[in-house]
Amino acid sequence: VCSSDLGLGRMGVPMALNLVNAGHQVTVYNRSADKTVALTEAGASAVTRPADLGAGAEVVFTMISNDAALEDVTSGPDGVLATMAAGSILVDMSTVTPACSARVAEAATKCSVAYIRAPVSGSVVFAVAKTLTILASGPTQAYETCKPLFELMGGKIFHVGQDEQARYLKLTLNMMVGITAGMAAEALAFSERGGVEWDVLLEVVANSAVASPLIGYKRAPMAARDWTPAFPANQMAKDFDMALDTARDLCTPLPITALVRQYWSTMMATGRGNNDFFGCLELLEEQAGIKPKSS
Amino acid sequence: VCSSDLGLGRMGVPMALNLVNAGHQVTVYNRSADKTVALTEAGASAVTRPADLGAGAEVVFTMISNDAALEDVTSGPDGVLATMAAGSILVDMSTVTPACSARVAEAATKCSVAYIRAPVSGSVVFAVAKTLTILASGPTQAYETCKPLFELMGGKIFHVGQDEQARYLKLTLNMMVGITAGMAAEALAFSERGGVEWDVLLEVVANSAVASPLIGYKRAPMAARDWTPAFPANQMAKDFDMALDTARDLCTPLPITALVRQYWSTMMATGRGNNDFFGCLELLEEQAGIKPKSS
Amino acid sequence: VCSSDLGLGRMGVPMALNLVNAGHQVTVYNRSADKTVALTEAGASAVTRPADLGAGAEVVFTMISNDAALEDVTSGPDGVLATMAAGSILVDMSTVTPACSARVAEAATKCSVAYIRAPVSGSVVFAVAKTLTILASGPTQAYETCKPLFELMGGKIFHVGQDEQARYLKLTLNMMVGITAGMAAEALAFSERGGVEWDVLLEVVANSAVASPLIGYKRAPMAARDWTPAFPANQMAKDFDMALDTARDLCTPLPITALVRQYWSTMMATGRGNNDFFGCLELLEEQAGIKPKSS
Amino acid sequence: VCSSDLGLGRMGVPMALNLVNAGHQVTVYNRSADKTVALTEAGASAVTRPADLGAGAEVVFTMISNDAALEDVTSGPDGVLATMAAGSILVDMSTVTPACSARVAEAATKCSVAYIRAPVSGSVVFAVAKTLTILASGPTQAYETCKPLFELMGGKIFHVGQDEQARYLKLTLNMMVGITAGMAAEALAFSERGGVEWDVLLEVVANSAVASPLIGYKRAPMAARDWTPAFPANQMAKDFDMALDTARDLCTPLPITALVRQYWSTMMATGRGNNDFFGCLELLEEQAGIKPKSS
Repeated sequence: VCSSDLGLGRMGVPMALNLVNAGHQVTVYNRSADKTVALTEAGASAVTRPADLGAGAEVVFTMISNDAALEDVTSGPDGVLATMAAGSILVDMSTVTPACSARVAEAATKCSVAYIRAPVSGSVVFAVAKTLTILASGPTQAYETCKPLFELMGGKIFHVGQDEQARYLKLTLNMMVGITAGMAAEALAFSERGGVEWDVLLEVVANSAVASPLIGYKRAPMAARDWTPAFPANQMAKDFDMALDTARDLCTPLPITALVRQYWSTMMATGRGNNDFFGCLELLEEQAGIKPKSS
Repeated sequence: VCSSDLGLGRMGVPMALNLVNAGHQVTVYNRSADKTVALTEAGASAVTRPADLGAGAEVVFTMISNDAALEDVTSGPDGVLATMAAGSILVDMSTVTPACSARVAEAATKCSVAYIRAPVSGSVVFAVAKTLTILASGPTQAYETCKPLFELMGGKIFHVGQDEQARYLKLTLNMMVGITAGMAAEALAFSERGGVEWDVLLEVVANSAVASPLIGYKRAPMAARDWTPAFPANQMAKDFDMALDTARDLCTPLPITALVRQYWSTMMATGRGNNDFFGCLELLEEQAGIKPKSS
Repeated sequence: VCSSDLGLGRMGVPMALNLVNAGHQVTVYNRSADKTVALTEAGASAVTRPADLGAGAEVVFTMISNDAALEDVTSGPDGVLATMAAGSILVDMSTVTPACSARVAEAATKCSVAYIRAPVSGSVVFAVAKTLTILASGPTQAYETCKPLFELMGGKIFHVGQDEQARYLKLTLNMMVGITAGMAAEALAFSERGGVEWDVLLEVVANSAVASPLIGYKRAPMAARDWTPAFPANQMAKDFDMALDTARDLCTPLPITALVRQYWSTMMATGRGNNDFFGCLELLEEQAGIKPKSS
Repeated sequence: VCSSDLGLGRMGVPMALNLVNAGHQVTVYNRSADKTVALTEAGASAVTRPADLGAGAEVVFTMISNDAALEDVTSGPDGVLATMAAGSILVDMSTVTPACSARVAEAATKCSVAYIRAPVSGSVVFAVAKTLTILASGPTQAYETCKPLFELMGGKIFHVGQDEQARYLKLTLNMMVGITAGMAAEALAFSERGGVEWDVLLEVVANSAVASPLIGYKRAPMAARDWTPAFPANQMAKDFDMALDTARDLCTPLPITALVRQYWSTMMATGRGNNDFFGCLELLEEQAGIKPKSS
């Protein structure tokens, strides 16, 4: 399969590299050309405009940072849809709102391009290890075509519907991931104030009924009080905003999400926006009068 | 070891039975005598007053329903501490507040009785299967004496401190368990409103970074929309109240806990207090205008 | 009318003094005898046990600090009900829970004493100025007897029901008073962050549709950033706890109350428990990254 | 003064009429021409494109419904700034975000047009009665020019800063107005559940320290349970969204606003989006298990 990759940030590069390394013919584009070096060294071709990716590609992958950027590189004046062949497939793996995705879907349909939404769950480590979770929705036939490519990038792949379902699911997981941090923050601060030793506390929680994989990943950084971001609070703020904006459209109340969203604001307001989102623990400790521990 | 068991509800009976079946000499008491039948048939002796349990027992276990009951059966006029020998051990496995537990500790100390707080995490199924999590705090020597007995009842046993630490930890876990339900409720209702099929939704969440064991246990009942209580909302309300009351004493804010606590009130106010606490999903569905599905 | 007054704190003294100054024969009791000096100098008699107040009094007023104290001085072993004559009236003007008040009601009924719940709204300044709001519930005839006495203490007097209605109403007003502070805190911090000058901000709010009398009273202290307590945060915490505990009994959700309650905990945890409850403004400013202004 | 008015909805028409009736030469524009009839009958001229309003106007007033519409009619291709003379004044009286307003400010500056932000507080009744509150910010000289015109429309006029201050203040008031409804809802439902009669409850609250003018306006509709909108929940949702979006930009937490925002979603999701926002009382009653009263 001849594919093209567009958007080569921290996630996009390892994902594209997995395709290149599997022997696929890959053409890449990124706004900052220096991001493509690792890929061209591995055998990919690089182009200088999104539109240059479209012609000849069977599948075009996009992995970009927000709604506006996705619309720009797909249906914008210089976007890739302009040059994609009828019958080819556009696969967007970004985290964007269902509303934005639906507009891209409409643009793709006009160009007779099949459109697969395939947001991923998991951080850079997972992208490198090919263990991302990929939530895909869109037409079954196009999904089946892409599946072997997805298998080069992810460990768990779900086909979850014919339309925007993958978008809603991605936001659902993000909400739960973020709320887990807020929940842990208050629950842990509570036991700290009660005199439980920090390591004992983490040990018990990590062996409990609420010990999700996420709690497992965060145990060591919490133990070390190391807030180097696997995912920074200011990014989590953006993900929460997508969920909350979508919930406005759906008239669906999200009381806990709305509450925890405020923590990301406070982290940003107090110089901690680039800390990992689990660093919201510090906020609840401060509000409980606990002296911050050194990291 | 000769032990005595006091408080034989849904949890207490299988826990005591595990001791009896292991060959220990066990004397039992329960307010309602019919609860002791299964135990006496298995070889336990039964008495008719808490105080009758104390004499001769090396270890007395209590497993009762709330603060007032624990104080009643331990340090009350007819309580077991009155007859326990100096050097014997009182092990309370109930979920009570640290404040109540500290009063019991004081009473035990006056009687030269060692006191182990050993609240358990896990439901009846776990009690039967001897896979409860036991969080114990209290003097190390007494803990070591009890450990072989704990191993007959639980799968994971932690010694978490010398004082009330186990109480705080138990409430911490309960908070997280309850909040997980509230979090799932709004996150799932969101995707439902977005058009994701219920089974797909549960499949994805159950395979995600937030898929705690708890989410795993609840997947089948959620799929079936079966709110038969593993743990009813009105009991969760009581557990949350213990956490919130303790947080008042600690001057520790628990914003999410306080918010989710309101869901248990609404469940009770709308005839769902005996439903499993994961049934709060229905509240969020209703608030999102989703027609309740049949169970 | 010959009356007796019990509980002479910051509120009780000026209230009793208004009765004495109007020419009523008043006997007083307070746990700390020094609190009664101002009253005996004005012409009141003082006794040394609550029970000594009961005999001969047509009306006994109580104004104490919490549930336990009210039960102690009324239905406790040395309580005033023991000596009150059948047909006399017990008027409790404290802020207590409906549950406690109902127990006092039961005890009063057993003694054939009529019982009026008459909690007051307003601070010490209002007590002195005889402008308290008095919310009374209880039997109409007893209320009518007390009304002339209430008119010596308050400016607005309502008869709101035959039972515990006054208790619920008092807690309702307290909730709204406390939430107003939390609401002002976030709304004002928002405009501060937006660059609105503090005095302009207060001027506009004080002239808006939300400018309640309370907002009016608090304008000057907010302008001066003077958190000298008219009502301290740790007292507001107790009032909120009464409301929240009562809401548990009623299975009634109080989401905003529950959230704002956490602010009082943080104020206490961070050394501000004795500040006026409107001082929660500082919390929201800190969470918004606003440098605290000097008071 | 020769002025032009643009945007003639429920608020805009009476506001413009007050200018016409005071003898000012007024030219008007509205997307739907039928809205201008009452004004042309009173002596105003009407035009058919926003740009036609600009030439010759000393002051142009805009009163439109949202951010996008404001940018469209001011700085859009056919917007009024294109034809306004250098030195003339653009006065926007709409409720829009500071972010949008700042973009309009930039466009006005490029055209050497002075820009006054002058959002109003108060509903249609106030607009008719010339008792609106007008919060104005922008250059002092332009403000002074407009002040006599503002005095024809409003009863309280504040000059609150040189830039976007009026925008922040308007959102601040809206937040407090909306939260007041949420606060009243839970506080009133609480007393209802406690057995207080509805009329008594409203009487007491309307005479309390929290009895803001807003509570006064809403007393009669609440008594009648008449949710005919003075301001519908779905509009309040939009106002809250402007506040929350602006708070995201400011990194300022708004926990209560965020929570109450969810009520507007539920009102919309359950067929009550066009009810007055004080109708959120019904939600809290339902959540407390109170049977809805007939209106």
